[in-house]
Amino acid sequence: MNHNLVKQLNDVSKEVNLTIDKILGKEFKPRELYNASKHLINAGGKRFRPFLVLKSCEIVGGQTEVALPVAAAIEFIHNFTLIHDDIMDNDYKRRSVQTVHVLWGIPIAITAGDMLYAKTYETILHNINLKKVSSKRILRILDAVTEATVSICEGQALDILFEQRPEISEEDYFKMIGKKTSALLQLATKSGAIIGGGSYSQVRKLDKFAYYAGFSFQVIDDILGLIAEENVLGKPVGNDIRKGKKTLIIIHTLAHANIDQRRQILSVLGNRKASVSEIQETIQTIRSLESIAYATKKAEEFVEKAKLQLYSFPPTPAKKALLNICDYILSRTF
Amino acid sequence: MNHNLVKQLNDVSKEVNLTIDKILGKEFKPRELYNASKHLINAGGKRFRPFLVLKSCEIVGGQTEVALPVAAAIEFIHNFTLIHDDIMDNDYKRRSVQTVHVLWGIPIAITAGDMLYAKTYETILHNINLKKVSSKRILRILDAVTEATVSICEGQALDILFEQRPEISEEDYFKMIGKKTSALLQLATKSGAIIGGGSYSQVRKLDKFAYYAGFSFQVIDDILGLIAEENVLGKPVGNDIRKGKKTLIIIHTLAHANIDQRRQILSVLGNRKASVSEIQETIQTIRSLESIAYATKKAEEFVEKAKLQLYSFPPTPAKKALLNICDYILSRTF
Repeated sequence: MNHNLVKQLNDVSKEVNLTIDKILGKEFKPRELYNASKHLINAGGKRFRPFLVLKSCEIVGGQTEVALPVAAAIEFIHNFTLIHDDIMDNDYKRRSVQTVHVLWGIPIAITAGDMLYAKTYETILHNINLKKVSSKRILRILDAVTEATVSICEGQALDILFEQRPEISEEDYFKMIGKKTSALLQLATKSGAIIGGGSYSQVRKLDKFAYYAGFSFQVIDDILGLIAEENVLGKPVGNDIRKGKKTLIIIHTLAHANIDQRRQILSVLGNRKASVSEIQETIQTIRSLESIAYATKKAEEFVEKAKLQLYSFPPTPAKKALLNICDYILSRTF
Repeated sequence: MNHNLVKQLNDVSKEVNLTIDKILGKEFKPRELYNASKHLINAGGKRFRPFLVLKSCEIVGGQTEVALPVAAAIEFIHNFTLIHDDIMDNDYKRRSVQTVHVLWGIPIAITAGDMLYAKTYETILHNINLKKVSSKRILRILDAVTEATVSICEGQALDILFEQRPEISEEDYFKMIGKKTSALLQLATKSGAIIGGGSYSQVRKLDKFAYYAGFSFQVIDDILGLIAEENVLGKPVGNDIRKGKKTLIIIHTLAHANIDQRRQILSVLGNRKASVSEIQETIQTIRSLESIAYATKKAEEFVEKAKLQLYSFPPTPAKKALLNICDYILSRTF
């Protein structure tokens, strides 16, 4: 990965983490609840969404320090959905640590997720500099936060419902990840641009940028969930197959498999007790049908579409960072 | 119950239900998610919190139709917490119907709760008449919504954590129910008064009114959970004991029990497999130590404190309704 981008991501992380620590500080009680809320945030994460907020603010000419609370707030939404998703998916490991419900139990984990979502609004309402941002713009950001969350819930529900359906179309898949994954990246770029004082046209372009980047991000995520090393990825590999997740890869494989391959795959897909060798056999079939190559190509195409949206912005360091982040989406290994 | 109050509660229900139907209408997808979100709302409920919103708006001289979206929004928060609480408590029945996670599974139920909470903000942001309410007042209401939810999460966490502690103090109990139960009633009266154009002093008085009314409401709820008829209450009786809930009644009983009674109670409290006769024996001890009478007296005292907060408001139908609702809190049977 581009060294300059690594440094920029680290810089953003440090600043955002300070804001997060202030909002979920040690003085709040009950401690168990606040510790559970902070657990995954503290365990790492690339602060990819806060980065999008700050660079989208910068690209429209805004001051990034004004956008910091929004950046932290969007990291809260991200982690709230991770805590709840891990309960729904029975996942016990993420970011190389045990998940929240494994450590604190399901009741505290559900509550910790709920509170993080409330803290999203609190962060925006209490921490934005009212001398620099009008009430109208704050209401627009809160509206964007809310619409993104409704979208994420609808996308998450589709993901759950698709697990029970034997086959879905590519169109269904993209509708689902548009809601589940793109929506939060769109919120990041949009709210960064709004708080930075961007025009409606600039907000719209950054919205579309994140929409396509989100497609690419999720497709690569699906590939990594299949072929990455567990100790690099920080969570178990092959679980998407056991859960019956309908990824672009699986959709492609099922569309091109012969009868025997199809039978083998359907016997493993959604089978929580599938053995390692059964999973390996499925991955072998996926590879032989070049489904991973197909998904990679799609991810590359979406990244190109994303980049095109930035065409009319003048060349600035922020624009360069947003273009670099696209390449990073394609090259990341975790 | 006062016939006039019954009519008023029914009138509010009808109006609020129309607003709710608009926001969770049949055109939204995926249907499974929206049906799950609406399930408990459709199953009944007294619309007690919307009633507080509208009457608090009216008592400060506001037009109640402007407050309707806020009334619906607060019913969403209430139902979001019920859906999640039922998962946490493994409850299978509420309002005489099966709970959301029993019907749709835990993943859809968690997501339906999350979405209802997002819809709380959407309802306020999209449905308040901007010609009649300033951006500043809308931001104050959103702030109140957020602080109430953080408080509810903290209270819920205390409730969960107290289940695992053998004994807690009355002070701890009131701290917990202040956060868990009063906070939402306070939000109802406060936001009604804010949207109605009330002064800071009026908002503060209605806030305190709901704070004390909430104590009374929860204490009576605890009593009903112990001695009501299941077919009237709409959920199983005696479950609080099996869950180890630290109610005011249990706290009083444990403080006054002799060694044998204490041993019997502690063997049943938090024992999910306690038999009906063991529960009956515990309730017998509770009665013999007059703990229910003690709790009832406390509830009456809090209702008096609540009523006192309304002293300075001129005599209006809205004031009368809020005073009547206090008597209703004490006399309700479900």
